[in-house]
Amino acid sequence: MKVNGTPYRSLWWDAEKDALQIIDQRWLPHDFRTQSVETLQDFADAIVQMRVRGAPLIGATAAYGMALAMRLDPTDAHMKTVWDFLHNTRPTAINLRWALNRCQAALLPVPEADRASAALALAHEIADEDVEINRQIGLNGLQLIQDIAAKKPDGEPVRLLTHCNAGWIATVDWGTATSPMYHAHDAGIALHVWVDETRPRNQGALTSWELGSHGIAHTYITDNAGGHLMQHGQVDLVITGTDRTTRRGDVCNKIGTYLKALAAHDNGVPFYVALPSPTIDWTVSDGIAEIPIEDRGSREITHIMGRNDMGEISEVQVTPDGTTGGNPAFDVTPNRLVTGLITERGICDASEDALTALFPDLCG
Amino acid sequence: MKVNGTPYRSLWWDAEKDALQIIDQRWLPHDFRTQSVETLQDFADAIVQMRVRGAPLIGATAAYGMALAMRLDPTDAHMKTVWDFLHNTRPTAINLRWALNRCQAALLPVPEADRASAALALAHEIADEDVEINRQIGLNGLQLIQDIAAKKPDGEPVRLLTHCNAGWIATVDWGTATSPMYHAHDAGIALHVWVDETRPRNQGALTSWELGSHGIAHTYITDNAGGHLMQHGQVDLVITGTDRTTRRGDVCNKIGTYLKALAAHDNGVPFYVALPSPTIDWTVSDGIAEIPIEDRGSREITHIMGRNDMGEISEVQVTPDGTTGGNPAFDVTPNRLVTGLITERGICDASEDALTALFPDLCG
Repeated sequence: MKVNGTPYRSLWWDAEKDALQIIDQRWLPHDFRTQSVETLQDFADAIVQMRVRGAPLIGATAAYGMALAMRLDPTDAHMKTVWDFLHNTRPTAINLRWALNRCQAALLPVPEADRASAALALAHEIADEDVEINRQIGLNGLQLIQDIAAKKPDGEPVRLLTHCNAGWIATVDWGTATSPMYHAHDAGIALHVWVDETRPRNQGALTSWELGSHGIAHTYITDNAGGHLMQHGQVDLVITGTDRTTRRGDVCNKIGTYLKALAAHDNGVPFYVALPSPTIDWTVSDGIAEIPIEDRGSREITHIMGRNDMGEISEVQVTPDGTTGGNPAFDVTPNRLVTGLITERGICDASEDALTALFPDLCG
Repeated sequence: MKVNGTPYRSLWWDAEKDALQIIDQRWLPHDFRTQSVETLQDFADAIVQMRVRGAPLIGATAAYGMALAMRLDPTDAHMKTVWDFLHNTRPTAINLRWALNRCQAALLPVPEADRASAALALAHEIADEDVEINRQIGLNGLQLIQDIAAKKPDGEPVRLLTHCNAGWIATVDWGTATSPMYHAHDAGIALHVWVDETRPRNQGALTSWELGSHGIAHTYITDNAGGHLMQHGQVDLVITGTDRTTRRGDVCNKIGTYLKALAAHDNGVPFYVALPSPTIDWTVSDGIAEIPIEDRGSREITHIMGRNDMGEISEVQVTPDGTTGGNPAFDVTPNRLVTGLITERGICDASEDALTALFPDLCG
């Protein structure tokens, strides 16, 4: 999508530098900084520190990490070492494992001498595929929004709510939850998006930045506000992303998603999840029992970053000295609270039957 | 309760200055500043700017405001003017109206010459009553905590969750939701409290400061985290305060309370509300339809205050320039989600029958 009028992807290959380029998202929305990722440690840092973030983007980044690894040392042993090294950067998003497994499966049969070029070609392929998947999710989600718009009085916007940033910068392009919004806006449908700030890391500010750049009307709200808005008929549709969805449709996503799903259910508001197929973990079923939830430590809770009145990006401590913050980064929304899954192949129920019917080639 | 070992109430009369003293809570938890409140504008500012906050404390403050008004001009006309002036400072907490009505009813029969002294005596009485009400709430809530503790393996703490600050600084002393915690801790019961940060104003930092000062173990969490903790059996009991409760037991409280009540209900966790009787609005029944919800404007959402690395209290902007924040300050939890109400007269169901049975003298 565009940044100040210039089209960007959230990562791209710089042929001159012969290296991957990323947007260092820690500085957004205040500052747009890009970075060249040139060592394996750079890759790990980029993922751990959330310079790149969002399940699909983490997957694509890992594929480029494997490409670098094969250039440095194309042996099977090194491939295994780097698989572990990159896989350990973040525990919850399944796309990381998906991308690393796909690279490993594709590269093991390739002669060592050809692995560097094959791995880079595969990383490009994974990145391009992600863009196409998200475009299809957008077209499928557009139908939902069109159906709601058709029942509204003329000029009244469709009011969506989203949590976290499942936007184009959380993917290679388009985003997952935002892709239907971009498609609907471009199709001339009036929208208004309630953007959850998404503590502790305030990814809602990224979503505001994205939507604002694209001209989509939106209001930034606390994570506490969505239930009240739904009680008062101010939300027509919730769309979130997902970091891992189980084969029966339990949705692991940014902490707080479950609370919004409960409120949507209590108020009869449709709750949809934008789900690229690489985010399905076919090996697990009960999300609450089986998915490991990352704990990101106290400081993300007790301190908040922003721009001070000198225009500098700086941090303030909100809590009293000595306060410990608890920081589970994700939660699981059970499938009973999910109205439907918006995938690249169409919209389906959040159930094992529906997912396996839609993805018979993947469900194993 | 104590601040650095010195016992305080959250407001007190200074005989030498002949004026009300308050803690300017905007600077907490970073800085403990007190202030003399000497003009009617001081009173309005203290409430509007949330130098004093919390439904019970707002009520007591308003009574002292009326005492000052009677000293300045004890006529009926001035009483009415000041009633309106103070009532307009915040629309949601019912204790403001309760205290002003009580003052008006008591003072109208008093000869003008005696009104100043009668009004001051009444303000003292209201403040003292608040302390006693909250002490009784603590004793009644203590029973609940004792019952849970009795079923736990030795040494395992009772794990509570609370939202916002319904602590001693939100009342004259003891707090409402915190009073059972202080009583349980003082009775030697092991506790651990999950403290919701409570965006946008982070009153959880005040609760952390209170609990830390009293030696109660606690962890500060985002508002998003509570549902996940309940799914994983980490919460035994939720206790919140309330800014206004209807005659049928719908609970209006800090924005986000409703989401915690939904999660408690979904996970079989008891959800109690500490309810001093002046917080009951006997004139309304359906909280969602009838209670006006204060909108506190965009800046509280887009900017966050804290202590910077120079030790100064300062503000950072979290969102991109031009972002609008939506800021409904309260929501309503329907009575079907409330396990019980902890009042000064005992614990009862959140229903009109139970409330009128407990308060036959007040229900009108």
